[in-house]
Amino acid sequence: MALKNLIEAKQLLEQGVLGELIADATKFEESDKTNSIPQLLDGKVLAALFYEPSTRTRFSFETAMLKLGGEVISTESASHFSSVTKGETLEDTIKIIGGYADVIVMRHPDKGASKRAATVSPVPILNAGDGPGEHPSQALLDLYTIKKEIGRLDDFCIAMVGDLKNGRTIHSLVKILAERKNVLIKLVAPCELQLPGEYVKLLEEKKVKFEKLSDLDDALDADVVYMTRIQKERFESKEDYERVKDCFVFGKNELAKFNKNGIILHPLPRVNEISPEIDSDPRAAYFRQAKNGVYARMALLKMVLGK
Amino acid sequence: MALKNLIEAKQLLEQGVLGELIADATKFEESDKTNSIPQLLDGKVLAALFYEPSTRTRFSFETAMLKLGGEVISTESASHFSSVTKGETLEDTIKIIGGYADVIVMRHPDKGASKRAATVSPVPILNAGDGPGEHPSQALLDLYTIKKEIGRLDDFCIAMVGDLKNGRTIHSLVKILAERKNVLIKLVAPCELQLPGEYVKLLEEKKVKFEKLSDLDDALDADVVYMTRIQKERFESKEDYERVKDCFVFGKNELAKFNKNGIILHPLPRVNEISPEIDSDPRAAYFRQAKNGVYARMALLKMVLGK
Amino acid sequence: MALKNLIEAKQLLEQGVLGELIADATKFEESDKTNSIPQLLDGKVLAALFYEPSTRTRFSFETAMLKLGGEVISTESASHFSSVTKGETLEDTIKIIGGYADVIVMRHPDKGASKRAATVSPVPILNAGDGPGEHPSQALLDLYTIKKEIGRLDDFCIAMVGDLKNGRTIHSLVKILAERKNVLIKLVAPCELQLPGEYVKLLEEKKVKFEKLSDLDDALDADVVYMTRIQKERFESKEDYERVKDCFVFGKNELAKFNKNGIILHPLPRVNEISPEIDSDPRAAYFRQAKNGVYARMALLKMVLGK
Repeated sequence: MALKNLIEAKQLLEQGVLGELIADATKFEESDKTNSIPQLLDGKVLAALFYEPSTRTRFSFETAMLKLGGEVISTESASHFSSVTKGETLEDTIKIIGGYADVIVMRHPDKGASKRAATVSPVPILNAGDGPGEHPSQALLDLYTIKKEIGRLDDFCIAMVGDLKNGRTIHSLVKILAERKNVLIKLVAPCELQLPGEYVKLLEEKKVKFEKLSDLDDALDADVVYMTRIQKERFESKEDYERVKDCFVFGKNELAKFNKNGIILHPLPRVNEISPEIDSDPRAAYFRQAKNGVYARMALLKMVLGK
Repeated sequence: MALKNLIEAKQLLEQGVLGELIADATKFEESDKTNSIPQLLDGKVLAALFYEPSTRTRFSFETAMLKLGGEVISTESASHFSSVTKGETLEDTIKIIGGYADVIVMRHPDKGASKRAATVSPVPILNAGDGPGEHPSQALLDLYTIKKEIGRLDDFCIAMVGDLKNGRTIHSLVKILAERKNVLIKLVAPCELQLPGEYVKLLEEKKVKFEKLSDLDDALDADVVYMTRIQKERFESKEDYERVKDCFVFGKNELAKFNKNGIILHPLPRVNEISPEIDSDPRAAYFRQAKNGVYARMALLKMVLGK
Repeated sequence: MALKNLIEAKQLLEQGVLGELIADATKFEESDKTNSIPQLLDGKVLAALFYEPSTRTRFSFETAMLKLGGEVISTESASHFSSVTKGETLEDTIKIIGGYADVIVMRHPDKGASKRAATVSPVPILNAGDGPGEHPSQALLDLYTIKKEIGRLDDFCIAMVGDLKNGRTIHSLVKILAERKNVLIKLVAPCELQLPGEYVKLLEEKKVKFEKLSDLDDALDADVVYMTRIQKERFESKEDYERVKDCFVFGKNELAKFNKNGIILHPLPRVNEISPEIDSDPRAAYFRQAKNGVYARMALLKMVLGK
């Protein structure tokens, strides 16, 4: 049942996979508290192959590997790949690095780059973001966080807020939640940035209940509010942006009306869409969510390395 | 009595702190010689968060962590922080990295950045330089070196030479030496680059004996000569620079007249202010001083991680 | 008989050195298959000091160190050396880093930089490329690969193909093969890029049999075909390049005529000179060659660290 690679979020839907990953992440988080993480990946080497910088994602994967007893070789930025400037193909690079390392975590600006890499790699590939494509370990850590924080991945209401058009995190979550039972999705976005048709169609096909909303206030009864960043540049005119922007900011007023048992998530970095004033509220789960990424990625490394 | 963070040199004055750090550094240096360093930080992760490059300081901290059995995640340069370019605050970055790592070593171009970080961080912050602000682990390794080389931190004469106006290393040392017993400080600098008034005032308040000198020759009876770099750009005219520059260079002539039991220190890098001809003299202690940084930082990591 | 540094390929000719390195590389490769690599370098620290980027070489050395139980401190790019921009000499940098690490792997754009470093370093220096100078660990892995793949380093025919004028890999190999017994060297290159006179003279002095050829087809009976990249910029006119370029490409046609027991090597990266169509043929050994670099460098680290 185990995955050999993780290239797209939909692989998390394969039989038994998500359950195993979440169970392992839970175990690793528990053992971390008592400094008793099993050194399962002792002697294994992870190559962090970042063709564009993403310090946070890189640190999260590297920490996961190191905590399991593995080792890391790492490159921060594509500009350092002299072989690339000499005209080497991605395929050749992967075959070579795959001769050194036991697993490759890869970030690349081109959609589909991870899939191409996985086709030729002698070792597992973990997609840490391929441009406008996928970032599936983010989806995994989001699901792990929801399970841990509210106790379930079925029978709950989630509000997705902000830029639902361009957010790859949102798209990954929609694909996976469409397969869960009895999930109500509130899609809170300005018209310009609502969920694309293909995802709406998927929800309809799977008979998932959903609502399109244009004001966050109408979604504060949700169990999970998933905030995302709205970029001013996405709007045709400054007026369009100014007109709607305040409807998608979670601040003190929203907190006062928010579900007492709910949680607030965000893939981070945030800019203005969540007020730092609410950070200390126990329902503000986004920093815990970031930390969960380490445990989710530990589970992933264990799975693809067959331990 | 242990420190939780190290943000400013004056924290080294807290009751018992300097003594414990120097004692531990000594022990680590001894155990390194016999390859028997206790693996106290096994399973711990250090994040080296360098918003501007400083290969040497980074390497020194990383080596310290690795020698104690810990692990390292590392970034060489701020330009790689995609989240920063997206507008993330320093506070958010620290909260997130603090979810991955057990201690953060931080270099930042802005004065006060480390203090801001320490306010929100869930894990200890070690300031590895905050622009024109502080670089307290340099002060620690200087003190460790003096103690080791001349056997004491009281009852000695130190000559500080070069740019006493801008050198943050000098300022840190002055603050700490002002609290020691019976230290005589010779301040050897061109008028333009003498010790700022606030530090002179501190020495007067603490009744520390000091002399302002304009020629290195008058300070060669000191137990410790602490050289620093004079930058040509600090002078208003080229003539001003040319007139004084040779008075602050330690070469063969100075060595011949130097205290037989004295030592020469320098925070490095040096340019012309110490002649490489004297490197092989046993009193030239600056490369030993650099190496001592590893042991001083091991002691620091042990302290803030509560081991 | 052990080497203290590796600065130039000719050091591999010292009594007993090459035999020991190849024997150790073989043992490490065997033990890697059973996850039983001896942790000989436990507690040792390698500094990867790359003044220009070379991700692959750096990864190969770092993997070698980590697999032997050692630790790594690493810098990707010279531009990050603030001390260099402040005017620090290479010698000072090496003395300082040599106070932190137990071995320094160094890449530098200037010919002779590694030799200068070795003169002052308190720890072993491994030259990972000094501009147009040497890259001796590449020669070592080439020799290890030939020995492993065809079973011997004497009594064989090697065709060197492409840019024999500028390829430092070729020059290193020629120097070493000139000392082996009964090696026939086929030098396949356009006139403009034939082997320089000094190396031809060496072959004559050592009475090594060799032939100059201008077409790869005439060398396909060799036991080893060592391909290198021809850069268009090396030719005076585009016509000169167009006229010859297809004579130095290894594709399906060449494979059909190639020695059934031969192997094809390439230092990589390749561009057009080997067609990816032949990658799956068992005689295409270049990716295995890259992987062998890890084992060859493990042997080298063991030797210079005296284990």
